[in-house]
Amino acid sequence: MKTMEDLFLHLVKDIYYAEKQIVKALPKMAKGVKNPELKQAFEHHLEETEAQVGRLEQIFQMLDKAPRGEKCPAILGLVEEGEEVMKKADDPSVIDAGLLAGAQAVEHYEMSRYGTLIAWAGQLGLHKAAPLLQATLKEEKAADALLSQIAEAAVNREAA
Amino acid sequence: MKTMEDLFLHLVKDIYYAEKQIVKALPKMAKGVKNPELKQAFEHHLEETEAQVGRLEQIFQMLDKAPRGEKCPAILGLVEEGEEVMKKADDPSVIDAGLLAGAQAVEHYEMSRYGTLIAWAGQLGLHKAAPLLQATLKEEKAADALLSQIAEAAVNREAA
Repeated sequence: MKTMEDLFLHLVKDIYYAEKQIVKALPKMAKGVKNPELKQAFEHHLEETEAQVGRLEQIFQMLDKAPRGEKCPAILGLVEEGEEVMKKADDPSVIDAGLLAGAQAVEHYEMSRYGTLIAWAGQLGLHKAAPLLQATLKEEKAADALLSQIAEAAVNREAA
Repeated sequence: MKTMEDLFLHLVKDIYYAEKQIVKALPKMAKGVKNPELKQAFEHHLEETEAQVGRLEQIFQMLDKAPRGEKCPAILGLVEEGEEVMKKADDPSVIDAGLLAGAQAVEHYEMSRYGTLIAWAGQLGLHKAAPLLQATLKEEKAADALLSQIAEAAVNREAA
């Protein structure tokens, strides 16, 4: 990684890998929870995530690169924490609260990464990439806000 | 983990482990960067993080538990991503931009975890824990905002 362009491409590959891991994890998470709003939120976010993968593929095309992920240790750690909750918790309400919190940690990871990519795209003059990244960032923020709302309304209360 | 109290304690242990990893990583990050504002921000956040560890120890005491971390795969992945940047990038400006972005990903992880802990503390009636968690959350948000400011002012521009 010699230049800022290399670093940008590295982070696009990192988040591409991460989004694909999330596509794999969300169906398991939706299956693992009891609260119907939470289940629906996970299912809806799976559809969004699939479209986000497509946006990243458009960015690879703009950069004239083949879409290829690069192992992202952070997302693997985040997914592992969710799996731990499913393994260690017994009570369905506790599982719901734990998986909801884990999903919010993933959303926050993505929010920081897309925020960085938007800043770098601006600096590098990649003006066609920025709106695609912004569209995804908006979805991640909305997904996080919806999870907070579900947590306050039901999941945390049921579990306590 | 049978109850919401168990889940709360699990997450306190997780973030306690994470903060201790951050205490180890920040001096290396401060040493690895060139931009003086960024170096100073890392050094200042190291002092804050040490105080945050102390706040978590107060919470362990409130819960009548010995302060003990529990392996947090997410922080290990996040720290690994920063180390990767230091290893793979040559240009000091690119290293600065990469480490700054990595630090923001860590801040976002912490923001999500402290946000969750505050919500759970409220549900569980742990009213003395909540202000300690809120004080830390405020610091993490301020650290993230300062990093964005440094990025916009200098680091990303120098590297591009």
